[in-house]
Amino acid sequence: MSTEMHPTRWGDPARASALPQTARDLVALVFPVADRMVADDAAVSLPPSVLTAEMLAELASVVGPDHVLTDERSRRLRAGGKSTPDLLRARSGDVSQPPGAVVRPQSHDEVQAVLEIASSHRVAVVPFGGGTSVVGGLAVRHEGYAGGISLDLGRMTRLLAVDPVSMTATLEPGLRGPDAEALLAEHGLTLGHYPQSFEYATVGGFAATRSSGQSSAGYGRFDAMVTGLVVATPAGPVELGRAPASAAGPDLRQLFLGSEGAFGVITAVTVRVRPAPETGVYEGWRWATFDAGADAMRRLAQAQLLPTVLRLSDESETALNLADPDAIGGGVAGESGEAGESGGGSLMVVGFEGTVESVATRRAAVTAVLADLGGEPVGEEPGRRWLAGRFDAPYLRDSLLDVGVLVETIETAAYWSGLRRTYDAVSAALLEALDGPALVLCHVSHVYETGASLYFTVAAADGPDPLGTWADARSAALDAIVDSGATITHHHGVGADHLPWLEDEVGAVGVEVLRAVKAALDPQGVLNPGVLIA
Amino acid sequence: MSTEMHPTRWGDPARASALPQTARDLVALVFPVADRMVADDAAVSLPPSVLTAEMLAELASVVGPDHVLTDERSRRLRAGGKSTPDLLRARSGDVSQPPGAVVRPQSHDEVQAVLEIASSHRVAVVPFGGGTSVVGGLAVRHEGYAGGISLDLGRMTRLLAVDPVSMTATLEPGLRGPDAEALLAEHGLTLGHYPQSFEYATVGGFAATRSSGQSSAGYGRFDAMVTGLVVATPAGPVELGRAPASAAGPDLRQLFLGSEGAFGVITAVTVRVRPAPETGVYEGWRWATFDAGADAMRRLAQAQLLPTVLRLSDESETALNLADPDAIGGGVAGESGEAGESGGGSLMVVGFEGTVESVATRRAAVTAVLADLGGEPVGEEPGRRWLAGRFDAPYLRDSLLDVGVLVETIETAAYWSGLRRTYDAVSAALLEALDGPALVLCHVSHVYETGASLYFTVAAADGPDPLGTWADARSAALDAIVDSGATITHHHGVGADHLPWLEDEVGAVGVEVLRAVKAALDPQGVLNPGVLIA
Repeated sequence: MSTEMHPTRWGDPARASALPQTARDLVALVFPVADRMVADDAAVSLPPSVLTAEMLAELASVVGPDHVLTDERSRRLRAGGKSTPDLLRARSGDVSQPPGAVVRPQSHDEVQAVLEIASSHRVAVVPFGGGTSVVGGLAVRHEGYAGGISLDLGRMTRLLAVDPVSMTATLEPGLRGPDAEALLAEHGLTLGHYPQSFEYATVGGFAATRSSGQSSAGYGRFDAMVTGLVVATPAGPVELGRAPASAAGPDLRQLFLGSEGAFGVITAVTVRVRPAPETGVYEGWRWATFDAGADAMRRLAQAQLLPTVLRLSDESETALNLADPDAIGGGVAGESGEAGESGGGSLMVVGFEGTVESVATRRAAVTAVLADLGGEPVGEEPGRRWLAGRFDAPYLRDSLLDVGVLVETIETAAYWSGLRRTYDAVSAALLEALDGPALVLCHVSHVYETGASLYFTVAAADGPDPLGTWADARSAALDAIVDSGATITHHHGVGADHLPWLEDEVGAVGVEVLRAVKAALDPQGVLNPGVLIA
Repeated sequence: MSTEMHPTRWGDPARASALPQTARDLVALVFPVADRMVADDAAVSLPPSVLTAEMLAELASVVGPDHVLTDERSRRLRAGGKSTPDLLRARSGDVSQPPGAVVRPQSHDEVQAVLEIASSHRVAVVPFGGGTSVVGGLAVRHEGYAGGISLDLGRMTRLLAVDPVSMTATLEPGLRGPDAEALLAEHGLTLGHYPQSFEYATVGGFAATRSSGQSSAGYGRFDAMVTGLVVATPAGPVELGRAPASAAGPDLRQLFLGSEGAFGVITAVTVRVRPAPETGVYEGWRWATFDAGADAMRRLAQAQLLPTVLRLSDESETALNLADPDAIGGGVAGESGEAGESGGGSLMVVGFEGTVESVATRRAAVTAVLADLGGEPVGEEPGRRWLAGRFDAPYLRDSLLDVGVLVETIETAAYWSGLRRTYDAVSAALLEALDGPALVLCHVSHVYETGASLYFTVAAADGPDPLGTWADARSAALDAIVDSGATITHHHGVGADHLPWLEDEVGAVGVEVLRAVKAALDPQGVLNPGVLIA
């Protein structure tokens, strides 16, 4: 697998695939399809770096001259994330917020030294892990600064410690999902964290954005796995997590989890690990309606009988998956409708991982509950299909963008009693804002005793101003989320894109608290300007 | 049950009991026993209030004149908490830090208004729930202030909302444990939070101190139950918790949980609730050693097979319990020794609550693991004894103080791999510091996948300077805790007593963050001076 993402597409170009003709025909039933051009790489020019030779030399004295990159390709690759607006801008040749240089430290101390240099010159610093942000967390906003750098953590990839008694491991922030799992596997351990961005996203990013993986029902959200953190800040280093739980005042770990590079740079993460599973079973259940399936999820969560993976597609997403079994990643392209020809309703994927014995026991208990609630078991094929394609949806997005279909996602979480209200409000807001042929699909992929996430996928004609179209739709959706009482983001983070809604989430005083923490840790305001804090 | 605590003793005077002669004889085997006098209530005089009539009138205009109490008894009852040093001072007639007035608001808005008045006059405000702090969290330190008030939340006792679908309930902060449970029981629900202080401690205090209850294995720590908070601060109100989980930046709920009244006054807490259990079974298991028992706890936690209650007494605590089956509360008084006549070793109490079916299933699974690891089941008698006496230890402490035995507790938590190191270090530090006939007992009562708590009970001769003796012992124990890598408190909180060690816990930068948050929320510094922030 390529270790770098393509500048205008997701992931590894070798794995990208053009839309098969059948899928293209299907898409053409709904949308006006037309091939879109992507700006020629050679024609893209970046604004020049404003960093002085003196600054670059100072940075090089810390990380070594080989690790201060100023070539156009390195800068372009770290000029943004992978939201659809990011891709649209990159496709049009707009790379307006690149770093002046890419700086690649190898240790906590080097990160700390870089932050001190950046603070002294008032140079903006954008921490960069896998480059997978979908909320505008990576643009290098350095207006009013003496330039900006991308602090690429890709050289900090060690497994620093394993404690097999306490079942914890300490990981460096630049470790990508697969590499972290490979290192842990040597000790018979797993983290069990599989967000859709798993193949590129990093441990530091998981922590900084409160990531949640597709196996969160069994392994928990990433923030729930973290027991300890080391963070470099302009005010000095911070080390937290002397015990699994503590009453020694506020839990400051929870202030750096979700801090998105605005408070400091996470340089080590200690996580709770689990034994690598002996086996895994993933199977499908069909529910008459999305509501019936969601209610079953709630009952499992409240009975504390959660499987390892638990997700539920609404009727539309289910219909699309069934209509096009070959669709990459599932749930993005296809034909709208209440029920596909294979039975309709709402498809649930239920997965169990662990020892053979624990999988059998838990599967039996969950099966009894689901059958009792009226679910229809549909075998392992839907589970296998989900497992095989679970990291592929972003490739499909590229293929759809290629033919003029705007695809993007938005996600939230709500308490169970408000879940349907939020679902309805967001669906309606998106359809109204898009005002034309559009599909809104939804699934629940993270459940708790008290509520669950909602993950919407939107497809619409790109039209003459796709950036404006999506900005309006996102804005309408976030307003609907806020009005319906839900959170502005369950696992994508705030970034710059959700920032206008943060005060709705935490209130004016909450925003003041974040500002005060920022001022204490980063007095020059060099860390990720425009992210999390306005 | 009395709703107010006695000024010099724990709890309800009607339930206090003198040490039975047999127990007294047993104690006399180890300690020089002599009846101690308690200062006559009538002889205790308080420093006069320095609050002006104008301030009192302003406060009365908010809460009503009946709810601004300035009588000596009301002030004395809110002059401190229930640590052994608090009791020793109260017994000696030293009530040097009482509030000038006790103010009893009835609503969030009244609390908010009181904070504004206090800020405008720079009057210290100490939030008061059940008065059960054992870390010096309640003394009204108002040197340099225009006086100090105790903000008694005892009138804020409503169940504000129940959401039986999401399984959450919103409680006012003044609700004591039993009252909260009684209100929830009307809906067939339970919180399942039973700290030793349960009968007096309040919901607001549970949240503000990150309390952990005796059923934490099954129901979780209090901070893990909280989904939402409303907080009144001098900077304005804060409302948090729009979803069970969120990636909308740092989790600010975790900044107010554990804030111990220094950042704001919690005026409503939304908690995850569970169905009231149909049944409960509590039984004993004997282990050859404390280490063997602790290892069994670790295996249960890491297999995610935790019962509802899981606690383990070390060999000394076990010996005492077995030597004196009638001891109130267990584990505080009696004869030292490695093994009692009833078998010795280390006693574990394992409890299951829930539906009949879930108790049976979980009990069978746990029993299989414990038997496989070499545990010896010793029936339900130890479980029944623990259940009957679980809130009584503080009464026994009073009885021992009466005969000249200094009794106090100290607690911590560590990762599993460091648990024995911390146990040894703290035991040795306490015995060395106490330098005379002394008992140090320990139990584990809160377990996690990655570690566990350690709760030490100390008994020693009070001697001529019991306050100095305990201050030295506590200091030595906390130094040992820090040196061994554990947390300075697992569930008692920081208060004023642990404050000198907070920088060891969170570092200099962590302390700066806390200061910055305090300055943003409480610019005049009126909230609980000397607690959490120096």
